[in-house]
Amino acid sequence: MQIETIKWVSGAVRIIDQTRLPLQLVYLDCRDVETLAQAIEELKVRGAPAIGVAAAYGVVLSVWGQEDISQELERKVRCAVDRLSHTRPTAINLFWALEKMQRAFTQSRGEEPERIQHLLLQEADRIFEQERKVCQKIGENGAALLEDGMSVLTHCNAGALATAGLGTALGVIYAAKSQGKRICVFADETRPLLQGARLTTWELLQNEIEVTLICDNAAAALMRTGRIDAVMVGADRIARNGDVANKVGTYGLAILAKEHRIPFYVAAPLSTLDMKLADGSKIPIEQRSPEEVTRGFGLPTAPQEVKVFNPAFDVTPGELVSAIILEKGIARNPYEPTFERWVR
Amino acid sequence: MQIETIKWVSGAVRIIDQTRLPLQLVYLDCRDVETLAQAIEELKVRGAPAIGVAAAYGVVLSVWGQEDISQELERKVRCAVDRLSHTRPTAINLFWALEKMQRAFTQSRGEEPERIQHLLLQEADRIFEQERKVCQKIGENGAALLEDGMSVLTHCNAGALATAGLGTALGVIYAAKSQGKRICVFADETRPLLQGARLTTWELLQNEIEVTLICDNAAAALMRTGRIDAVMVGADRIARNGDVANKVGTYGLAILAKEHRIPFYVAAPLSTLDMKLADGSKIPIEQRSPEEVTRGFGLPTAPQEVKVFNPAFDVTPGELVSAIILEKGIARNPYEPTFERWVR
Repeated sequence: MQIETIKWVSGAVRIIDQTRLPLQLVYLDCRDVETLAQAIEELKVRGAPAIGVAAAYGVVLSVWGQEDISQELERKVRCAVDRLSHTRPTAINLFWALEKMQRAFTQSRGEEPERIQHLLLQEADRIFEQERKVCQKIGENGAALLEDGMSVLTHCNAGALATAGLGTALGVIYAAKSQGKRICVFADETRPLLQGARLTTWELLQNEIEVTLICDNAAAALMRTGRIDAVMVGADRIARNGDVANKVGTYGLAILAKEHRIPFYVAAPLSTLDMKLADGSKIPIEQRSPEEVTRGFGLPTAPQEVKVFNPAFDVTPGELVSAIILEKGIARNPYEPTFERWVR
Repeated sequence: MQIETIKWVSGAVRIIDQTRLPLQLVYLDCRDVETLAQAIEELKVRGAPAIGVAAAYGVVLSVWGQEDISQELERKVRCAVDRLSHTRPTAINLFWALEKMQRAFTQSRGEEPERIQHLLLQEADRIFEQERKVCQKIGENGAALLEDGMSVLTHCNAGALATAGLGTALGVIYAAKSQGKRICVFADETRPLLQGARLTTWELLQNEIEVTLICDNAAAALMRTGRIDAVMVGADRIARNGDVANKVGTYGLAILAKEHRIPFYVAAPLSTLDMKLADGSKIPIEQRSPEEVTRGFGLPTAPQEVKVFNPAFDVTPGELVSAIILEKGIARNPYEPTFERWVR
């Protein structure tokens, strides 16, 4: 099944409202920047590559149908970039895509408003298309690491719902399947927002891949049974040395994998690399609302007055990562020389 | 605040219905064995020591107010022991308490029914009182391991709500506090049933102890910040070599603690020791319903057809445990000689 996570539909960014899954498959048309920005903040669209693509189309929204003179358009684009860049701090793909859009706008200076709209849409489409193809390549590269009959543990959702294509971590699973390998997936439910329970299991079932849901708590016991052959996750930002920011819980999983001698793989596009950062210590980690933990399912599940520590991401040191699967190939520790070569 | 988790009230076992916390503090009077057995199965009363005490009173219920001849009473006691022993398989305290009650009944053979009732109640009261005092001793012993200003991470609920007294892991915190030490607690929410979020935070707030709630997923990132000085958990069953069965997630925490060089402590009564088991591999691990994971909060949070792996407990190898705190003192690896001495 082709999952259309993000789609440009004449003047609107159409997204799957992922907060409604798995109960309902509902599409949401964002016709202005603010609606889209809020959709990103509320995780209606989420996943680092998907956020980048959505934000690119968000910049198109800011000029769409506008007859203004160029100066006015410039103000609108600047506002859009500013608003969208303040939605979520950790995933670098957002800033990467906004920078590309900003550059495309600068290059269109002096053109007619309609032409500018056209050029910006073209650039967003290019980003979309590039990220779609990149998923394909990541999948093919990663599939070489998986053998028929393996069981793979994944965390959060790094699938079609997190990208413009097949996904990153799940893209590898899909590619392995299309090569005729039977892969079983174990999905961490991924508290607090249950992207694993709600999204990963849904998307794998849609694609007829065997999946078993576990509480995040059960990962260590499951590894101990010997049933897990590999861990495969996505990434929100990767520093030069291979330190990986990803959904909170990833770092713990990497330690558990090391303890059980299970390979720990990260699959991500090059647009996730932040070559400006020497290591992961400077990656901004988004702190989210206590209510995600204390009333994540509507009903309160903790005393109202309790303090909560709720980081959305954590950083896994590169030395705990067995390999990082990118569209250019598979990088291993030390990561920096390989990254340098591929980014150039 | 004195929390009365279990209390015998003329012909009924009065328990706090822990499934209603933290929203409501509701007491439930169990007047027959079946009601109590279901309360144990549904975790209305839970925690290894508390289950033992509740089951002891459950045996009293089976003969209470009965005018039958001795043979009929024997059948009723046998049925009660059988029913109660089939509620939950992992916590050994249940079987320990039932064995004690069975022995007390056997010793009362030939007595008048009223006298038998009296003797059984006396035995259950003795178990209650013993477990209460044991918590006190565990607390005092464990408090020696904690210094003023420390932060302690705990998992699930090993507090007053899990015992007949102050608790085991939390008993240590309470004892440290009463010695004037300020201890901050971080509480894992503990999926799927959120005993950490619902019970541990509630009970610590009642006792004016600073507590911060985290998703289980955030434990590794939190340890990485250097803010955790010790991990302190309870136990459901401990094998001769120090392997510890406890709430699922404990084993993973122990690995994370080792990686971050944080001491990992287990606090439990001697009644938790299973000296018949050489190691933890033979401890029966309760598998619970998929619905705890997929509809744990009322609303479905995963596709209905998804497979679920939901063990209630895991086993932490003794070599990952820095110390086991018992009423007799603090045991360290190798555990067996110390256990042998203390059990004798």
